[in-house]
Amino acid sequence: MTQLGTQSAYLALCPQSLPTRLAHVVALIKKLGEDVQQWHVKEVGDGNLNLVFIVQSPKGSVIVKQALPYVRLVGDSWPLPLYRAFYEYHALTRQAQRDPGSVPEIYYFDETQALIVMEFFTPHVILRNKLITGETVEGLGEFCGKHCARMAFRGSELSMQSSDKKADVALFAGNVEIPAITEGLVFTDPYFEAAMNSHTPELDPVVAQLRANVDLKRIVQSMLAKFASNTETMLHGDLHSGSIMSTETESRVIDPEFAQYGPMGFDIGMLTANFLMAFFSQPGHRKDDLVGYQTWILSVVKDCFVAFQKEFRHLWSTERTGMLYPKTLFEDQGHSSENACEFVLGNIWTDALRFCGIEMHRRCLSLAHNADFESIEDTSVRARLEARNIEMGLSLILNADMLSTPQDLAGLARKINEKDIL
Amino acid sequence: MTQLGTQSAYLALCPQSLPTRLAHVVALIKKLGEDVQQWHVKEVGDGNLNLVFIVQSPKGSVIVKQALPYVRLVGDSWPLPLYRAFYEYHALTRQAQRDPGSVPEIYYFDETQALIVMEFFTPHVILRNKLITGETVEGLGEFCGKHCARMAFRGSELSMQSSDKKADVALFAGNVEIPAITEGLVFTDPYFEAAMNSHTPELDPVVAQLRANVDLKRIVQSMLAKFASNTETMLHGDLHSGSIMSTETESRVIDPEFAQYGPMGFDIGMLTANFLMAFFSQPGHRKDDLVGYQTWILSVVKDCFVAFQKEFRHLWSTERTGMLYPKTLFEDQGHSSENACEFVLGNIWTDALRFCGIEMHRRCLSLAHNADFESIEDTSVRARLEARNIEMGLSLILNADMLSTPQDLAGLARKINEKDIL
Repeated sequence: MTQLGTQSAYLALCPQSLPTRLAHVVALIKKLGEDVQQWHVKEVGDGNLNLVFIVQSPKGSVIVKQALPYVRLVGDSWPLPLYRAFYEYHALTRQAQRDPGSVPEIYYFDETQALIVMEFFTPHVILRNKLITGETVEGLGEFCGKHCARMAFRGSELSMQSSDKKADVALFAGNVEIPAITEGLVFTDPYFEAAMNSHTPELDPVVAQLRANVDLKRIVQSMLAKFASNTETMLHGDLHSGSIMSTETESRVIDPEFAQYGPMGFDIGMLTANFLMAFFSQPGHRKDDLVGYQTWILSVVKDCFVAFQKEFRHLWSTERTGMLYPKTLFEDQGHSSENACEFVLGNIWTDALRFCGIEMHRRCLSLAHNADFESIEDTSVRARLEARNIEMGLSLILNADMLSTPQDLAGLARKINEKDIL
Repeated sequence: MTQLGTQSAYLALCPQSLPTRLAHVVALIKKLGEDVQQWHVKEVGDGNLNLVFIVQSPKGSVIVKQALPYVRLVGDSWPLPLYRAFYEYHALTRQAQRDPGSVPEIYYFDETQALIVMEFFTPHVILRNKLITGETVEGLGEFCGKHCARMAFRGSELSMQSSDKKADVALFAGNVEIPAITEGLVFTDPYFEAAMNSHTPELDPVVAQLRANVDLKRIVQSMLAKFASNTETMLHGDLHSGSIMSTETESRVIDPEFAQYGPMGFDIGMLTANFLMAFFSQPGHRKDDLVGYQTWILSVVKDCFVAFQKEFRHLWSTERTGMLYPKTLFEDQGHSSENACEFVLGNIWTDALRFCGIEMHRRCLSLAHNADFESIEDTSVRARLEARNIEMGLSLILNADMLSTPQDLAGLARKINEKDIL
């Protein structure tokens, strides 16, 4: 009988071996019962980096997630360190503290096996699938905005003690290879003919024009510099509609294995990009109520930013206990810090729009496209929609500081959605 | 006989114990000879945090620097971790690689004793003393500018491999208490009545007006956020005219125990502040050739920035081997990256001017004033000169983006030097 423990060498789980190997984990027995014969295991991982199993018994259910030592998308030719499970574990515990109930509860963590046993969200499904099939989620924008604001604020030196924050920066600085994926695939590869790139063939002229834009490349690289060096807060690092699970009325965030310290605008920017990609891809998925559903997606984008700003202002006035913009310097002197808060929010906003534009580009031009566009089989239809998406991204990167409000952002998306670029 | 080793508990050296305690260090015997009777020890530390000894024999000389477990300036009531010697050691080795010959060579390091034995620069003296007594140093600005550019560029992801840079960020993130001194004393305390503050009494109205400026406090706090979170490169962290030793023709940089990762504009900004404080304080030190000497100081400021920019551009075109602004994206595509380099330099410039202004404030308003002003005994004279210095700092912080060139900066200093504020 194999007992899982920190002394055993790493070995990938399979549905057959899982019950035996996890039979002695107390946290699992509590959730599923002692009789492993009754544990039903289903492999559900559709990600690229991990094994994911749902384990159910008459008593309960859990998710077992185990990191793989390579990127599945490109076979085992791209090795990837197992220690990312360690960072996912640490990220999940911090997210749970900073926005309780927003992420799966952890039942068990085994560092050597790169394995986390956690809460199974049911009947939640991956948000991206809902957006492709045209389903709405009540309160989605507000949940996302509030979550991003809490993570941004409470993980920064606006809130944390500097010594704790610096120790955490040191911890997460060990997560080198995972951020390197983002650094290459997101910020650099889309803008030249990198080996692993691909795009819809009809986009050739659009792509050529984009890659000839030297100002664009300069700005994107300045955002890469921020992403790599500006350790303002702990990021999810890969917050897209595939990292959110929702029912009709409830949403949860999963998969923070790309966690790192980075700029406050990153997560909300990446997430906004994924909403906007859902928006621009809709004509490839439906004719009925197209306008109504697209309008709903844009309302999510707006709600998300409005909720972010509202929650951030609230935390600014109630939880500003870190060394930045201290009350000793403002309120205690009879000086309002509201203006300072608006400046900080303004910087987050322009950063977010630029990260958003970059994510919109890379999902059409680099490795790892997303299903919003990829599932549109007619490539001429797909290319036409992707072209709008690329133009929106370009506009956000170049002109982020010319948009003032979430309404401006939604208005720009509506305008570009009506353009015939290809 | 006490033998110094990593197993011994920390014990502060004194001139009497030093030869015996270091008698078995091979590197010292090589420099000074085996006969410790011939080792002449002189305590020279005038710093606040360390013991510093010159040890000389007929054969040679060395500096022995040992960290103290508290800040001397305020007695032993402010404990300070000994591990800063560890960071000084690591900083010195990196500085020696990145700008060979600019810093003392290390002969021996003992982590437990928080002790570094290193090259003794002679006949060099502390630059601040030269600036107070009115001596010039040939090539000073060029040396400083080139040094800052090499440190900024070669310690960043413009040059370094990201994995190496991230490992280094993690290493230096352990240096919490030392940056905390800067965070408090430099960025926050000057702008309210902090307990350890002091200023020349005649400055009261100027100080009151400064502390009532909410926009100023907001901008300074945004610079603190950059200082604390923007890990662009390894900083010296405390580069002022007391951290430079010069002869008439040669300069060297010492004392990087405040090393941390931070923004590229920080070191050159702090150093510029110290040149400008030397400039504004001159009327308190001499009447003869006042204008000539002040003109020379401003030429150092200009030379420093010109050399920084020239060296940075040179490294940009010859050593850009990191992930930021990669040649694959620019030169390899037939696209110039010169414009990108100018944008990066532009950001360094405005950051530097703001850090400069903040340093000019804190040296008159917070703890740890400097001798340029402090040694002017007539407080009404001192206050008049400090008032100009404070106004210059204010102008730099508020209007950094309105100055374009080192000549503009020098021009502003000349203008404010003629104002009667008090």
